[in-house]
Amino acid sequence: MKPARSIRVPGFRGAGSSCGIKKLAKPDLALVVSDLPCVSDVVFTRNKVFAAPVAWGKALRGRAALRGVIVNSGNANACTGAEGLSAVRKTSVAACAALGLRSGSLLVSSTGVIGVPLPVEKIVKALPALCASLSEDGVARAGDAILTTDAYPKRGVRKVRVRGGQVTLGGIAKGAGMISPNMGTMLAYVFTDAALRPADLRKAFREAVDLSFNRIVVDGDTSTNDTAAVFANGACGLPPLSGKDLAAFAEALRSLLLDLALMIVRDGEGATRVVRMMVTRAANGRDAEKAARAVGTSLLVKTAVFGADPNWGRIVAAIGRAGVRLDPERVELTLAGEKVLRRGMKIDRAAERRAAPKIRKEAYGIEADLGLGKGSHHVYFSDLNHDYVRINAGYRS
Amino acid sequence: MKPARSIRVPGFRGAGSSCGIKKLAKPDLALVVSDLPCVSDVVFTRNKVFAAPVAWGKALRGRAALRGVIVNSGNANACTGAEGLSAVRKTSVAACAALGLRSGSLLVSSTGVIGVPLPVEKIVKALPALCASLSEDGVARAGDAILTTDAYPKRGVRKVRVRGGQVTLGGIAKGAGMISPNMGTMLAYVFTDAALRPADLRKAFREAVDLSFNRIVVDGDTSTNDTAAVFANGACGLPPLSGKDLAAFAEALRSLLLDLALMIVRDGEGATRVVRMMVTRAANGRDAEKAARAVGTSLLVKTAVFGADPNWGRIVAAIGRAGVRLDPERVELTLAGEKVLRRGMKIDRAAERRAAPKIRKEAYGIEADLGLGKGSHHVYFSDLNHDYVRINAGYRS
Repeated sequence: MKPARSIRVPGFRGAGSSCGIKKLAKPDLALVVSDLPCVSDVVFTRNKVFAAPVAWGKALRGRAALRGVIVNSGNANACTGAEGLSAVRKTSVAACAALGLRSGSLLVSSTGVIGVPLPVEKIVKALPALCASLSEDGVARAGDAILTTDAYPKRGVRKVRVRGGQVTLGGIAKGAGMISPNMGTMLAYVFTDAALRPADLRKAFREAVDLSFNRIVVDGDTSTNDTAAVFANGACGLPPLSGKDLAAFAEALRSLLLDLALMIVRDGEGATRVVRMMVTRAANGRDAEKAARAVGTSLLVKTAVFGADPNWGRIVAAIGRAGVRLDPERVELTLAGEKVLRRGMKIDRAAERRAAPKIRKEAYGIEADLGLGKGSHHVYFSDLNHDYVRINAGYRS
Repeated sequence: MKPARSIRVPGFRGAGSSCGIKKLAKPDLALVVSDLPCVSDVVFTRNKVFAAPVAWGKALRGRAALRGVIVNSGNANACTGAEGLSAVRKTSVAACAALGLRSGSLLVSSTGVIGVPLPVEKIVKALPALCASLSEDGVARAGDAILTTDAYPKRGVRKVRVRGGQVTLGGIAKGAGMISPNMGTMLAYVFTDAALRPADLRKAFREAVDLSFNRIVVDGDTSTNDTAAVFANGACGLPPLSGKDLAAFAEALRSLLLDLALMIVRDGEGATRVVRMMVTRAANGRDAEKAARAVGTSLLVKTAVFGADPNWGRIVAAIGRAGVRLDPERVELTLAGEKVLRRGMKIDRAAERRAAPKIRKEAYGIEADLGLGKGSHHVYFSDLNHDYVRINAGYRS
């Protein structure tokens, strides 16, 4: 799950630079743009308090064909009122003009501190040099410039054989602190030279987002700025994908987004482990999801995961308070493949001992079988440790 | 808010000892019993996975007059199946016999690690010496023996002048890690020599619990073992309280429980600050509560409170994901008395600067005025810092 080094996608050029929003000349301005018109899709945060660029993007949706994205990091441009919207407009107008594109051709995103006016003049001033440095190799540099508290960049590439040739998907993402539902911002952008019909791209993208980013972010518990987008420019020269080729593309997109999502969980502002929490045989799917998320967001479970403590009681207690149908006597719990709790609250001490070394690994699974119905759901979560506190206590200061 | 040193309540005797459940001979067995019959009331956790002593207590409720409570710490006797229930029964039978009380006269509580069989024989063996050491001064020692990760004991006393004399209320409590909804166990016991009619005591107690412990524990998000109880033995020799005297007693009970609850928040497994989060003018009361709890359980808010960072954007973002009716443009936010955000997302930088030193204090208030309706609610929460992780990662190991 190491980030890909290069993410060249034919017909896309990227660039990243430091425009001075962040201190110490860290990269804080990213641009990726397609040489050709694109088919695209965007999903935004469900938080009712959404940032100015999200408001702008929602208003823009469907009104202009997007060709790429411009992102600043270091400032979320959230809770910034009319001034904030004006800053998005200025960014968009200046960037589209600098690229010779029709106004509104770029998605605008921001991530960083909330409630501080965005110094848009710094962005505008940096645009000429940024545009001049655009290159196919620069998409990875754009990926570096969207980071905030991330410990490392998140990038991925997939190549898919299709009839008549091959298509490429390249993705960059940003996010850490996904160890809690009230996380920092998650951003993800995928670029592909495949040709796709808008409805096909949308379907594949929404499904992939549901199985990746939505498995690490609690519904409705997203940040003010979360945004994920896909751009398909058809530069491969092949006709729109269909049938088996479309299915292969969709599978590659799912795999790419899941990789990016797991890189985010794994980063998790100091996280040391990633756990896949699977709930099976819940009364229904909604209950399964609630139970899985209750475990994944429990501070007591997260700290136990950090301490590699086979404290399955905390897992059962978290499900008990999840507000789902539950008969504790029916619950079975499997920790890293070892069934430590059997029906009737029977504890298997030998299994507990066998699980102990396995939960010291970087990644493992927990399964809770509620023994009630057919609902199942899984989420990925990380542990909670000292670094999380250090990073978030001093974030603004 | 310092714990009272002594908590003598006429007619109640207490004792605490080490029976060997905890390592290092720490106090882990507590007993408080009234010399006279009591009127009492008990509230239990709403977690669907509740511990054996809670199941036992619920079954017992109303079937026997309680005279006191026996508590072990170091083991929660939760997720322990039939064996766990048997351990409660043995504890109850042995303790009542040792005291010459009718079977079922004692409330039994446990707190500590989940999923490990309770070594009940250690409790039974320790009972004779524990009973022999009962004294009016011993209630405070009982308070010491119910602690787990607590940094200090929680005790309080109130004396209330009533017609014909005075009544005393003494309380002991246990709990830390209340900084999150999925906390460790909260236990609280109040003893009074007042005479009360059962319905009056119940009403006063439930109201006091709602304004104290329920303001720091998310509804339905309680631990497997949470228990709060009140015992009134009438040893003051006065008739049952009524009218103004009853009101004065109820007020003292509220004040005592709030003190105990705030001691728990303040302990919070390493907490350095306590914040009162008040939401006003929400669309309705339920929305106000959801918004206040969303802020109080936000890891990003908690770490910002620890860092004394006036990061009000995280507060607004937490309300935005609370699932309540919200128009961000109407929100006003007051931090430690300084209105940093005015309607229309207008930031007051001068107020922000004035707030900065005030949020370095140990206790302050945050108020979010949603500008929509008449709903209001408040909760108390503490910050999240390094000690929380240290304590909980190594709790079992």
